[in-house]
Amino acid sequence: MPRDTEKTRRRLLEAAIAEFSEFGPAGARVDRIAERAGVNKERIYPYFGSKDALFDAVVAHELGRATADVPITGSGPAAIGDYAARLFDHRRSHPELPRLMAWEGLVRGAEVTALAQRQAHCLDKVDAVERALPGISRQDAGELLLSIVTLTDGWHVFPQLGRLFVGDDDDVRRRRREHLRAVAMSMAEATLHGRHIED
Amino acid sequence: MPRDTEKTRRRLLEAAIAEFSEFGPAGARVDRIAERAGVNKERIYPYFGSKDALFDAVVAHELGRATADVPITGSGPAAIGDYAARLFDHRRSHPELPRLMAWEGLVRGAEVTALAQRQAHCLDKVDAVERALPGISRQDAGELLLSIVTLTDGWHVFPQLGRLFVGDDDDVRRRRREHLRAVAMSMAEATLHGRHIED
Repeated sequence: MPRDTEKTRRRLLEAAIAEFSEFGPAGARVDRIAERAGVNKERIYPYFGSKDALFDAVVAHELGRATADVPITGSGPAAIGDYAARLFDHRRSHPELPRLMAWEGLVRGAEVTALAQRQAHCLDKVDAVERALPGISRQDAGELLLSIVTLTDGWHVFPQLGRLFVGDDDDVRRRRREHLRAVAMSMAEATLHGRHIED
Repeated sequence: MPRDTEKTRRRLLEAAIAEFSEFGPAGARVDRIAERAGVNKERIYPYFGSKDALFDAVVAHELGRATADVPITGSGPAAIGDYAARLFDHRRSHPELPRLMAWEGLVRGAEVTALAQRQAHCLDKVDAVERALPGISRQDAGELLLSIVTLTDGWHVFPQLGRLFVGDDDDVRRRRREHLRAVAMSMAEATLHGRHIED
C-alpha cells in the first residue's frame, strides 16, 4: 500500500477505535469517525467496506495489540498472578479494548466475526496457560483465563460498581491490582490442586 | 395508587426492563416501551418523568429484586462460594441486571443517580461479607464482593469470551458455576489469610 494510503487507513482506524469505544457499534457514527480522522466520509467505505466491517477491524487491531504486549511468561501460580497484574496495567493504558469487548457482547451476543481467527487467538492463550501450569486440564486453563480477563475487563465496564464497592480514592487502583494478582494466583493454585473437584 | 394505575406502572416497568436491557439507555426507544406495554406513549412521562428517569427506575427495581432474592447466609469461605453460585443462578434467571449494569457503566461511567441509596445497598452487602468472614477487613470485603459480582455479571456481558475460552456445549454453565464457587471460596480463603499482603 502506498505510504499516503496507509497513513489515511491508520488515521481512520485510530479515529474508529475512539468512536466505537465511546459509543459502541450501534451508536457510533461514520461521519464523526471521518471528522475525527480529518478524512472525507466517502473515503471510509473503500478502505473498510461498512460500519460493521470497520468495527471488526477495530476489534482485531486492539486484540492483536494486547496479545503482543502482554505475553504469559514464567511458570507456576505466581506467573499467572503476574500475568493478571500486567494485563490490568495494559487495560489501564488501553481502556478501549474492554469497552469494545462489552459492546460486542451486549450487541452481538456470542456471535463473533472472523471466528477462526479469534478462536486461534484464544487457543494460543490457553496453550500458554497450560505451559505455565503443567498438569492443568485444558478446560480449567480456559476457565482460569476467562475469569482473569473478565476481572480485568470488568473493571472498565462496571466503573460504578468499583466506586460503590471499593471507593474511588487515589490508592484504589494499586489495591485492585494487588487483589487481582492474589486472586489469579489463588485460582491457579486451587485449579492445580483440583480444589473445585474435591469440594 | 389506584389499582389500575399501579397495574399500568408495572406494565411499563416490565416493558422498560426488556427494552433497556436489550438496547441500553441511549438506544432504547420510549415508543417501543409504550408499544411493548400496550400503553399510550404520552402516559409514560406522568409516571416516570423522562427516559433517563425510567432507566433509573428500572435499575433500582432490578437491584432491589436481586438483593431480596440472593442473601449472603452462613459463614466461612464455603458460604461465600455458595453465595457466588446462587448469584450465578439468579443472573441466569434474570440476565437483564448484568446487562443494565454494563450499559450504565459504559454510558455513564462511574456516575450513578440515587447515589446514597446505591451506596447503602452496597454497604449492606459488605456488612454481610464481614459477618460471614469474621476478621476480614472492610476493604477486603469490598474487593471480594466486587470480584464476585464482576465474574457473575461478566458472564452475561462477554458471552463471546465464554464461547471462545470455554466453549458452548450443554455442560458449560454447570462447569462455570462450579468454577465460580471454587474461585469465590479461594478468594475468601486467600483474603482471610492475608495472602495478598504477604506475596
